[in-house]
Amino acid sequence: MKAIYLLSAVALGASLCVSADEGQWQPHQLAELQAELTAKGIAIPGKQLADLSQYPMSAIVSMGYCSASFVSPNGLVVTNHHCAYNAIQNNSSKENNLIEKGFLAKTMAEELSAGPQERLYITEAVTDVTAQVSGSLAAGLSGEARYNAIEANRKALIKSCEADPNYRCSVVSFHHGLEYFQIKQLMLQDVRLVYAPSDAVGGFGGDIDNFEYPRHSGDYTFIRAYVGKDGKPAPYSVDNVPYQSKHFLKVSASGVRQGDGILLAGYPGSTSRYRLADEIAFAANWQYPAQVKTYQQIIDTIDRLSASDADIQVKYASTVKSLNNRMKKLRGLLDGFKVTDIHAIKQQQEQALTGWINADKARSQYQQSITALQQVIDADQAFTQQTYYFETAKRSDLLQTAILLYRLAQESQKPDAEREMGFQQRDLSMIEGRLARMEKSFHPTMDLAIWSEQLAEYLAQPDSVRVTELDTVLGLNAGMSQAEVSAKLITLYSQSKLGSIAGRTSWLGKAPADFVQSDDPFIRIAVAIYDKNKALQQQEKELNGQLSAVRPAYMQALIAYNKTQGKPVYPDANSTLRISYGSVDGYPAQDGVYKTPFTSVQGLIAKRKAAAPFIVPENLVTAYQAGNTEGYFYADLAAKQSQPWLCRIFSCPQPEIKAFNSVPVNFLTSADTTGGNSGSAVMNGKGELVGLNFDSTYESITKDWYFNPEITRAIHVDIRYVLWLMQYVDGAQNLLDEMQIVR
Amino acid sequence: MKAIYLLSAVALGASLCVSADEGQWQPHQLAELQAELTAKGIAIPGKQLADLSQYPMSAIVSMGYCSASFVSPNGLVVTNHHCAYNAIQNNSSKENNLIEKGFLAKTMAEELSAGPQERLYITEAVTDVTAQVSGSLAAGLSGEARYNAIEANRKALIKSCEADPNYRCSVVSFHHGLEYFQIKQLMLQDVRLVYAPSDAVGGFGGDIDNFEYPRHSGDYTFIRAYVGKDGKPAPYSVDNVPYQSKHFLKVSASGVRQGDGILLAGYPGSTSRYRLADEIAFAANWQYPAQVKTYQQIIDTIDRLSASDADIQVKYASTVKSLNNRMKKLRGLLDGFKVTDIHAIKQQQEQALTGWINADKARSQYQQSITALQQVIDADQAFTQQTYYFETAKRSDLLQTAILLYRLAQESQKPDAEREMGFQQRDLSMIEGRLARMEKSFHPTMDLAIWSEQLAEYLAQPDSVRVTELDTVLGLNAGMSQAEVSAKLITLYSQSKLGSIAGRTSWLGKAPADFVQSDDPFIRIAVAIYDKNKALQQQEKELNGQLSAVRPAYMQALIAYNKTQGKPVYPDANSTLRISYGSVDGYPAQDGVYKTPFTSVQGLIAKRKAAAPFIVPENLVTAYQAGNTEGYFYADLAAKQSQPWLCRIFSCPQPEIKAFNSVPVNFLTSADTTGGNSGSAVMNGKGELVGLNFDSTYESITKDWYFNPEITRAIHVDIRYVLWLMQYVDGAQNLLDEMQIVR
Repeated sequence: MKAIYLLSAVALGASLCVSADEGQWQPHQLAELQAELTAKGIAIPGKQLADLSQYPMSAIVSMGYCSASFVSPNGLVVTNHHCAYNAIQNNSSKENNLIEKGFLAKTMAEELSAGPQERLYITEAVTDVTAQVSGSLAAGLSGEARYNAIEANRKALIKSCEADPNYRCSVVSFHHGLEYFQIKQLMLQDVRLVYAPSDAVGGFGGDIDNFEYPRHSGDYTFIRAYVGKDGKPAPYSVDNVPYQSKHFLKVSASGVRQGDGILLAGYPGSTSRYRLADEIAFAANWQYPAQVKTYQQIIDTIDRLSASDADIQVKYASTVKSLNNRMKKLRGLLDGFKVTDIHAIKQQQEQALTGWINADKARSQYQQSITALQQVIDADQAFTQQTYYFETAKRSDLLQTAILLYRLAQESQKPDAEREMGFQQRDLSMIEGRLARMEKSFHPTMDLAIWSEQLAEYLAQPDSVRVTELDTVLGLNAGMSQAEVSAKLITLYSQSKLGSIAGRTSWLGKAPADFVQSDDPFIRIAVAIYDKNKALQQQEKELNGQLSAVRPAYMQALIAYNKTQGKPVYPDANSTLRISYGSVDGYPAQDGVYKTPFTSVQGLIAKRKAAAPFIVPENLVTAYQAGNTEGYFYADLAAKQSQPWLCRIFSCPQPEIKAFNSVPVNFLTSADTTGGNSGSAVMNGKGELVGLNFDSTYESITKDWYFNPEITRAIHVDIRYVLWLMQYVDGAQNLLDEMQIVR
Repeated sequence: MKAIYLLSAVALGASLCVSADEGQWQPHQLAELQAELTAKGIAIPGKQLADLSQYPMSAIVSMGYCSASFVSPNGLVVTNHHCAYNAIQNNSSKENNLIEKGFLAKTMAEELSAGPQERLYITEAVTDVTAQVSGSLAAGLSGEARYNAIEANRKALIKSCEADPNYRCSVVSFHHGLEYFQIKQLMLQDVRLVYAPSDAVGGFGGDIDNFEYPRHSGDYTFIRAYVGKDGKPAPYSVDNVPYQSKHFLKVSASGVRQGDGILLAGYPGSTSRYRLADEIAFAANWQYPAQVKTYQQIIDTIDRLSASDADIQVKYASTVKSLNNRMKKLRGLLDGFKVTDIHAIKQQQEQALTGWINADKARSQYQQSITALQQVIDADQAFTQQTYYFETAKRSDLLQTAILLYRLAQESQKPDAEREMGFQQRDLSMIEGRLARMEKSFHPTMDLAIWSEQLAEYLAQPDSVRVTELDTVLGLNAGMSQAEVSAKLITLYSQSKLGSIAGRTSWLGKAPADFVQSDDPFIRIAVAIYDKNKALQQQEKELNGQLSAVRPAYMQALIAYNKTQGKPVYPDANSTLRISYGSVDGYPAQDGVYKTPFTSVQGLIAKRKAAAPFIVPENLVTAYQAGNTEGYFYADLAAKQSQPWLCRIFSCPQPEIKAFNSVPVNFLTSADTTGGNSGSAVMNGKGELVGLNFDSTYESITKDWYFNPEITRAIHVDIRYVLWLMQYVDGAQNLLDEMQIVR
C-alpha cells in the first residue's frame, strides 16, 4: 500500500517517463544517452559502448542461456557458478564430486571439457533488417499469411548469414515487430572448465536464498574458450589452443563504493514492459494463478514420489529446482502486484498516451492502433484460456517426445527453407541433444504420476475446453479421477520404446507413414492429435501474425509520444546484447526496513550452519578470521559520522565502529536486468569488471512488467570476494596472474 | 559473528565505558549529566529533571507494574493499552466486548472503574536511608543474621513512612546493597478507564510481533485518577472528583524527527548489568536452558488441553500469553548470546578492573571483594541447581495456594513488625486479591496436567536433588511416569476445597493448628513440606545476606574505577523511578539490513489481513486513504536528496518521492529501557510528550545483561498516531480539548 501510494505519485507525475536507471538499451542507443552516462560518472563515451568491436563490448559473450565476459588475453571467461553448473556436473562423479569440492586447474592442461553442447557466442554484428523482413509485406494479409511471410524472410536471412559455419545467426524482432535486427555471432565450440568454487560457496543459500537479499553467494566460475590451431572455432580437441579475444575486461580490485555508477552488459531474456493494462490484469488474475496451481501440483507430486525413491529423486531434482524457481518468481509477481498496483499505473500511462493522441487530430491513427491491439489481445487471451488445459493434459515427457518426433518427420517432408523454425537442418543437433538428455531426467513412474494428475485436472474442465481426439485416443471420459486415468494409462509405458535413448533416436529420419503404422502407444497418441495440434498452431500463427501488425503500430505511438519529450525508448528484452547502467544503492524493502547495498564475509560467517545450503568452508573462515584480507577490504565510515553513539565525548576512547568494514560478498545496484543477465559483467565507469550479476531481489520480480526505480535492485557478486577467495582461500594465483588486475 | 567482531573492538577500546545512551539514571544523577543532556539537545536543565516536584517529573506515575504520565490538569493519564488491559477486560462482557470494540467516554460520567485493585503511584520523595538500613550492622554477622537485620530496619522505616495511609512506601536496595533509598509514593485508589482503542489497533501484531520491529502497534490507553472531595486518595466512589496533579505533560503534535534527542521517564523493573562473567555463563548455559525446557512443557500442555476445552482455553489464555512472552525473551537472550559474546566482553571488563586494582597497592581490598563475591556466587549457583526441580515440582496453583495460606498463618503468629515482608498486615489485601483472581485462571484438569508433568520431570532427577518430605507425602518414587503420578494425584482435586474462592478465603485468619488438623489434601502437603521450605528459605537468606555484603564491595570497586575516569555509574533497575535519554535512530539488524526508525500508517495498512492480530479497522483505512491526516504527517526528504533516481534530469517532471511520508505509527530510540518501562513517557528536549514506550527489538533483549549501543533500540508509539486516531478515527475531541497540545 505504501508502494501503491508512492507509485501513484510516480505514475501521475511521470507517466511513461523512462527514469534514470531503467532501460536495457541496445548498444547503438548508448550514443544518445551520453548525458545520462556522464551524470552517472561513466567515463567511457557512449559512442565507444555502441561499438561492438571496441573495449569493453567486444569482451562480452553469451553462453546461449547466460551472459559472461573475457577477462584475459587467453580466452579466460568469467560467468556465474549456476551458469556453469552443467559443465561442473558433467565432470563430476560420485568419487570425484566437483560440485561439492570445487575445481581449480593449475595449468591449462588440467582444464576439463565443459561438454560437447557448451558454446560461447560473441556478437560481432547487429544489422537492421526490418526492410527485408517486413518492409515489403502485401497489405491485407491474413494473420497467418503475414506470420508465414515474416518467418520465410527471417529464415532466408539466417541461411545466408550462416553460410560461414563458424557463425550462428538470428533475426530478432525488436519493439514487438516494429524493427528486426540480424544478430551475427561467432560460435566457439570448445569450452573448458577452469575454476569453480565449491558449491558451498558458489551456491551458498541455495533455493532458500533464491531471489532474496541479504545474500552471500559466491556465484562465479571461470571457463575458457578454445579454438583450432588456425584460430577458428572447432569442436573439442586436445590440439586446440586458447581463443584470443579482441579485448578482455580489466578487473578492478578496488571494486565499487556506495553511490558509484556502474555499467552492466549481457543478454537479458524477456520483459513485458510495453504491455497494456489489460494484459497485466489477465496475467495477474488468470494466467499466473493457473500456472501456480499446475506447478504446485507437479512439485508436490515429485516431492511425494522422490521421498521414497532415490532414483526418482536424482532424476527430477533439476526439474523440481526449476519449478521451484518459477514458482518463487510467480509468487513474487503476484505478491508484487498486491503491493504495487501496476495495473493502475499502466492504465494511467495509457490515459496519458490517449490524452496526447487526442490533443492533435494528426495523431488519430495511433488511437486506431490501440483499439486494434486491444481486440487482438482479447482474442489471444481467449485462445490461451481455451487451450491451457489441453496443453497441461499433454504433460508427459514420453508424449512430448512422440509429438516432437512426428512433427519433425512431417516437417522433414518439406524443403529445408520451408520447414518451421526449430525443425530445420540447423536444429537437428539440438533435437538429438534433447533426446539424449532425457535419459537423465525421465522415470516412467514419475511421468505417469504427473501426466495422470494433469489429465484428471483437464477432465474436470468443461466440455468446451476438452479435445475429442485426445479423449478418444486415451479412452477418457469427463470427470474421471486420477486413479482411473492412471489405471488406464499404466500399460502404455511398458508398451512404449520411447523410454530409452535408442528407442527415441531410432525415429529420427523416419517418414510420417512409419509413425502412422507404429503400435508404440505414445506415437499413436501423437499421430491421433497431430491435426488438432496443427490447427491450434495455425490459430496461434494467425494471432501472432495479427499481433505482429498491431503491436508495432502501438509501439510507434509510444515512441512518438516519448520523442516529443526527448526520450529514447528501449525495446523489451529479447535475448540480444544490451547495456544497462545504474548505481550501487540499497532500497526500502518494507516499512521500517532498508536493505543496505553490501553484504560481508562477516555476515556470511554469521549465517553459517552445519548443513547445506548454509555451509561455509572452514578454510574460508580461517583465512578471514586470521585477517588474511589485505587488498580486498572495504571500509565505509559514513555511518559512524552520521550516527555517533559510543561513549561520552569527554573521556571515553572511541573505537572505530564502521557501517561496513569487511570483505564485501554481494552488492546491489539499480541496473535494469532480467533472466539471461546471469553472469553479466558489472563494470565501473572505466569499464573495468567490479562484479557479476546473478539475481534480483524478491521485491524486484515485477520489473518484468514495470521497472519501479525505488525498489528494483539487481544482486551482484563483488569481484573483491572473488579475488579474495582466489588469493587467500583457493590458491588460484595462476589465474590472478593471467588477468589484468587494476586498482 | 559480525557483532562479536565489532563488539570485541568495543570491549577492548572502551571497557567499562558507559556509552552515550546507556543508563537508567536515578533522577538525582541528572544534574551530573548536564554535558550529555546538552549534547543530546535536551533543553530542560538536569537539575530540574532531578526535582520530582517540578515539571516534567512530577507528571510521571507508576501503575505498580507499568509506567504512565499525567497529560491534563484533571488527572488524565496515558499509558500502554497492554498496561490497561485488565481495566478494559474487567469492563468487558460477551455482549459488550470493550477489548474488541475499544472504549471512549465522551464525558467523565461515562468513565468506568478500572477495578478495585488498580492503583496509581506518584513518587514524591526519594530519601537515602543507607545509614539506617545497613549503617550500623554488627561486624561478623552470619548471612542470615545480616539479612534479618536489614529486613527489620527496612520494615521499621516503611512502617513509619506509611503512618499516613495515603502513602505507599518501600525501602529499596541500589547497587545491590551499597545504598538504600526510601521511596514514598502517593497512592491513588480510584482509577477509571477513559479511552482505549480497539484491540485491533492497541494489540496490532499480537504475540507474533512481540519484541519485533518493524512494528505497527497503537499501544496506548487513557485512564483517569480520581480522589475524594477532600483531594485525598480514596477508593472508588461516584462522589469522587478528578485528581489535580501538580504538573501534567504537554503533548507535542510535532513529534520527533530522526536524530532528535529524547528523554524517557518511568519505572524499569530489573537489569543485571553489573553481574560477573561467571553469572552470565551460568544463565546462558544452565538456568535459561532449564527454564526454556520447563516453560515449553507447560505451554505445550496448555495448548494441548486448550484445543479441546473452551473453558480451559479462556482460563489459561493469559498464562500462556505470559509464558510465550517469557519464552520469546529467553530465546532472544540465548540467540543474542550467540551473536554477541557478552561473556567475553564481561571477562575483558573484569580484567580491565583487575588491571586498575593491581596498579595500586591501596586498591587491594577491592580485589578481595571480587574474590569473595565469586565464592558466594558459586554457592548461590549450586543452591539454584539444587532446588530448581523441587521448585518446579510444586507447580500446582492449589499447592501454591496451600503453601501461601499456611505460611501466612505461621507468620501471623508473630507481631506484625516481625513477620516476613509480603505477609504483614499491609499485604493482606494483596493476598486476598490473589486468592480471588485465581477463580479466573484455574482449572483442576489443567492444574493436574501441569503439576504431574513437572513432578515426573522432578522424579527423573538424581536422588540428591529430590526432597523426601515431598516424595513421602505424595507417595512418589523415583522414575515414575507422568501417567503414574497423575493417577495418584487425581483424587486430591475432588477432596480439596481450595478450588473455590470460599474454600480458599475460609483459611484466612486460621491458626497453624487448624492446618495441621485439616484433611484437605493440599493443606496436608503444604504442612508436610513446610519445614523443608523454611529451611530452604533460610539457606536463601544466608546467601542473600552474604551477597548483601560482598556485592556492594564489588560495586564500590567498580564505581571507584569509573570515578577515576570521570564517569558516574547508574544502578541496576529496581522498579524505581528512572530517567533515560537517547536519540531517534535506526539500527543495523543484520548484515545487509538496516531497520529505519519510523513505521507508517501506510505500512500498517500494507500488513492488513482478514484475521487477528493483523486486522486494521475499516474506518482507520478510510480516514487515511481519504487524506484526513492534516497535522500529523511526517515527511522526511533526506532520502530523496541523497539518492536521486527518478527520471532523466533534463526533461522529466520529478515527483516528490520521500524517504518517509505518512503518519508515523511507531519509532525507535536508543534510550535505555527494560520491562516495567511499558507506558513510559517519551519526551522531546522540552519535556513534551512525543511517544509512549512499549517494547524493545529482538536484538535488544540481551540489554538486561549488556547494553550494546549499536543495536539496542526501544520501540515507542508515536504520539502523532495517537492524536491522529483521536481526531480522525475515534472522535476523541473531548480529550484532545482537555490536553495541552503544542507544536
